[in-house]
Amino acid sequence: MHHFTAADLHAFEKIYRLNLVNALPGYKPANLVGTADDEGRTNLAIFSSVVHLGSDPAVLGMVTRPTTVPRHTYKNVRATGCYTLNHVPATHAGAAHYTSANFPREESEFDACGFTPVYRDGFAAPYVAESQVSIGLRLAEELPIKLNGTVLLIGTVEHVYIAPEALRPDGTLDLAAIDTACISGLESYYRATPLARYAYARAGQGPQRIP
Amino acid sequence: MHHFTAADLHAFEKIYRLNLVNALPGYKPANLVGTADDEGRTNLAIFSSVVHLGSDPAVLGMVTRPTTVPRHTYKNVRATGCYTLNHVPATHAGAAHYTSANFPREESEFDACGFTPVYRDGFAAPYVAESQVSIGLRLAEELPIKLNGTVLLIGTVEHVYIAPEALRPDGTLDLAAIDTACISGLESYYRATPLARYAYARAGQGPQRIP
Repeated sequence: MHHFTAADLHAFEKIYRLNLVNALPGYKPANLVGTADDEGRTNLAIFSSVVHLGSDPAVLGMVTRPTTVPRHTYKNVRATGCYTLNHVPATHAGAAHYTSANFPREESEFDACGFTPVYRDGFAAPYVAESQVSIGLRLAEELPIKLNGTVLLIGTVEHVYIAPEALRPDGTLDLAAIDTACISGLESYYRATPLARYAYARAGQGPQRIP
Repeated sequence: MHHFTAADLHAFEKIYRLNLVNALPGYKPANLVGTADDEGRTNLAIFSSVVHLGSDPAVLGMVTRPTTVPRHTYKNVRATGCYTLNHVPATHAGAAHYTSANFPREESEFDACGFTPVYRDGFAAPYVAESQVSIGLRLAEELPIKLNGTVLLIGTVEHVYIAPEALRPDGTLDLAAIDTACISGLESYYRATPLARYAYARAGQGPQRIP
């Protein structure tokens, strides 16, 4: 095994370190975050830092860096309190990645990258028409992370939209059926295939597969 | 599209809601968290809530619920300040899932689930010998999330161990080469296959594939 210490990581060339450390968590979710500013100009940005925080109420977190890219997203979330998460279809991985380019504020990533903004049920932030799972969130809290100036944006789920073929009778989602992508590091996109499903685990029973 | 509001989610039967809301982020990383208590008794628990927070210093977050499962992990992290993250090999998805059962404190999930604890370089928490990527973290901060009583554990990376076949010359990781698994919801395990890699995006150039 290669072994790197904290000192090794710090001494690495910047891009090498970014590549390595961003890949450490494993596969990460691929979501496009849709927002609009006060004047209705839309913005779209890819995030791999969405994390489940709770189910009742339904709460999701998202890590961002206020002072660097993607600052338009952060500004819009603060201005309107609303943002959307939209699963990246594997067929649109390249277009989704392209939203990470530093477009001028006047230019919407929806147009530049080939996604279709859609407003639903009076919510102030745009959804991505091409996504098969979309979520409307309202900013509930910002948790600053002192160690490095990042912020955990905590949002409560107000709306969920799911393509019928993704929703199983037990409420679980079949992400392979809708070809959702995942990400490693900053640059690698993956498609996933089902391996197995397991029932709620109980000591003494061993892992129980769901047929 | 199915449309659910916050009120719909709250009204759902509990398991249905847990299944649905836990699946909303998309694919999640699959990590086994290794810890030991003051007396050296080991503990192992699967987490799907690891998130990248920063690269220099290298910082990872992890969401936990102090008052419910997996409370042994939380206690051990607080007692020793040390924990390890270990990628779940797709071949071990069932065993990894089984660590979520409520084993008594005296019983180590390493033994009960068939993983091998290994201590490296004097670090106080055990790694998983079967994992091809392992990380030694020191607890730096606990951020309580008031909305629901969860906690974001923030850890600085002290050690990284990577199987040689996973590390590309540019520092990125080839997770497919080491067959790392990912998770949807609470119960579904997936294997991922590479789709494409893209260079740092620049406005006006379109997405540029890395060959």
